[in-house]
Amino acid sequence: MPRTGSTAGPTLAVVAREAGVSVPTASKVVNGRDDVAPETRRRVTEVLDRLGYVRRRRGGPPKPHGMIDLVLASPLGGGAEGSAVLHGVERAAHTEGLEVVVSAGRHLGRDRLDRLAARGTAGVLFHGDAPSAAQRAWLARHRVPYVLVDPWGEPPRGAAWVGAADRGGGRAAAAHLLALGHERIAVLAAAAPGRAGAGWLAGWREAVTGAGLPERAAYVRRVGAGEPGPCGARLRTLELLELPEPPTAVCVGSDAWVPGVYGALAERGLRVPDGMAVVGYGDLPEARWAVPGLTTVRRPVAEMAGAALALLARLAPGGAADGLPVELETELVVRSSTAPPGGSSPRAGSAGAGGQR
Amino acid sequence: MPRTGSTAGPTLAVVAREAGVSVPTASKVVNGRDDVAPETRRRVTEVLDRLGYVRRRRGGPPKPHGMIDLVLASPLGGGAEGSAVLHGVERAAHTEGLEVVVSAGRHLGRDRLDRLAARGTAGVLFHGDAPSAAQRAWLARHRVPYVLVDPWGEPPRGAAWVGAADRGGGRAAAAHLLALGHERIAVLAAAAPGRAGAGWLAGWREAVTGAGLPERAAYVRRVGAGEPGPCGARLRTLELLELPEPPTAVCVGSDAWVPGVYGALAERGLRVPDGMAVVGYGDLPEARWAVPGLTTVRRPVAEMAGAALALLARLAPGGAADGLPVELETELVVRSSTAPPGGSSPRAGSAGAGGQR
Repeated sequence: MPRTGSTAGPTLAVVAREAGVSVPTASKVVNGRDDVAPETRRRVTEVLDRLGYVRRRRGGPPKPHGMIDLVLASPLGGGAEGSAVLHGVERAAHTEGLEVVVSAGRHLGRDRLDRLAARGTAGVLFHGDAPSAAQRAWLARHRVPYVLVDPWGEPPRGAAWVGAADRGGGRAAAAHLLALGHERIAVLAAAAPGRAGAGWLAGWREAVTGAGLPERAAYVRRVGAGEPGPCGARLRTLELLELPEPPTAVCVGSDAWVPGVYGALAERGLRVPDGMAVVGYGDLPEARWAVPGLTTVRRPVAEMAGAALALLARLAPGGAADGLPVELETELVVRSSTAPPGGSSPRAGSAGAGGQR
Repeated sequence: MPRTGSTAGPTLAVVAREAGVSVPTASKVVNGRDDVAPETRRRVTEVLDRLGYVRRRRGGPPKPHGMIDLVLASPLGGGAEGSAVLHGVERAAHTEGLEVVVSAGRHLGRDRLDRLAARGTAGVLFHGDAPSAAQRAWLARHRVPYVLVDPWGEPPRGAAWVGAADRGGGRAAAAHLLALGHERIAVLAAAAPGRAGAGWLAGWREAVTGAGLPERAAYVRRVGAGEPGPCGARLRTLELLELPEPPTAVCVGSDAWVPGVYGALAERGLRVPDGMAVVGYGDLPEARWAVPGLTTVRRPVAEMAGAALALLARLAPGGAADGLPVELETELVVRSSTAPPGGSSPRAGSAGAGGQR
């Protein structure tokens, strides 16, 4: 049941005249029909873009259609995050009575977008990568609402998005170590952090300097964008251990990097948590299965995805999506990788810190 | 563009008479329309099932429609396998010009199935869990083809499926250790193995006994279905180390269990690979980031999913799907967790074993 794409008379007539085609032909292009010659489609599309044509609908916003689109960041494979996003979206969509069409961001060409319009998508969720300017223009023209799930960069102005309160997450990680008595707390952060990573690092800094500790540049280490995370984390940890006054604890920007940190510590004969306390970020599957179990901060990815779906289902097509950022709270999860410095009070310290599960 | 569900006159008339409804009403139920009273729908459905009604189509099999359904095993979240399946299906679907609707197996109720029919799905891929007998009857009645991706159990008779050549995978894992000179090779297998796990264990056994080694019951340890894999693997590894003659190498049924194996070895002060050589199974992300990097056997999950999609796209609706099992080859991936027994030739042995990457 594709949405009947009622089009706006005058404006479409202007488009048709400008493109030198008939109104029905222009209408076909707008509605994503494929019985239009490629050259004609190209010409009409160019005019649509140039004039900023927007479809109008009769009788107010239509009811949400039965399908939404989820565009996952590429590559799809292997990412626990992508899996959690899909899980959250599918569950929320089931509740809303919607079906979910999944595609990879890199496959979202013009043809694909036209298909979305032709079958009347109720809206699009973008995970990670925000839509390009051209894609946003297309979405606006077709009055297709969209919501970003955990956007990596700064969201485009006016876009609705759902993320995590990462600043609070960074603060919670450092605060946990401070409460255990650590004063030499290092941090492994992404060399080119996205929105989440930047917020997390700011939170870490806030907690450390807020506790009256000096900020030591040597304790802030960057994991390069070009190197696999665990490899970079291993090298940076080895560097930290060679400092004249090595840290007693480290906050790691992603649970996925922790195998490298644990590996470096083992290479130097140090045990976790007594030789070094380690706090991760994300609460990925790795955190649960690490030995010792990783104390970390949970980012509620599936919940973010579910909230984004619910938000999308409530946005009338073309309705204002302004001013709707939502940040879900993170949560400290205490396992066995943290203890007071030097293991002075081996396990009791962290076990009593609350939040253990 | 939902497929126009042309229905078979006489048979539908029989159904309508039997259910005490009009033919148009019976037709609505067959076509998944929602303007039918629940009680009427239930009654018609019961008759459809009982009489084994099958929709007929005019003009031969329709062209594959633009959408297929992927039903992922529940829970969706966290699984690297689910991620790889989605990746493979999405990529292949893009090549075929198909879109992918994703749902969780546990949400695939009758209503959902009726929606699939209403929008004219081109077919369904089931990951892990095969459809139930009732679902298979529904699929047959609506002439919707389906293919299983890496089925966990024995596939239903006549079902098309794509899996991995797991028996060869188990053989390759053990053969690698045999070639390094190991003669005391243990195995950690699932207590209730599925199709893949049973094949893998049979392959391991074949290689070990084929090399003329005695099969020692004490070396075959089971990881329970109820306990998290890494925890079970840790306990079984500790048991192996307490044997009068402990093994020098172990084949582990899943890469996901390896953190438990590594953890147990570290607890007993043993290093990998000199204290114990470890070969995993699957080549999950864990294998790449383990320290030391895990020698394992790659199951080509994304490729299986892609092959299943391509197979589905070629099955005419209702066409015979008999005799089409496809098993894709596995591949030994040598990293740093294997070496000759006792570390007699520390790293050269495994580095020269080929297949490293």
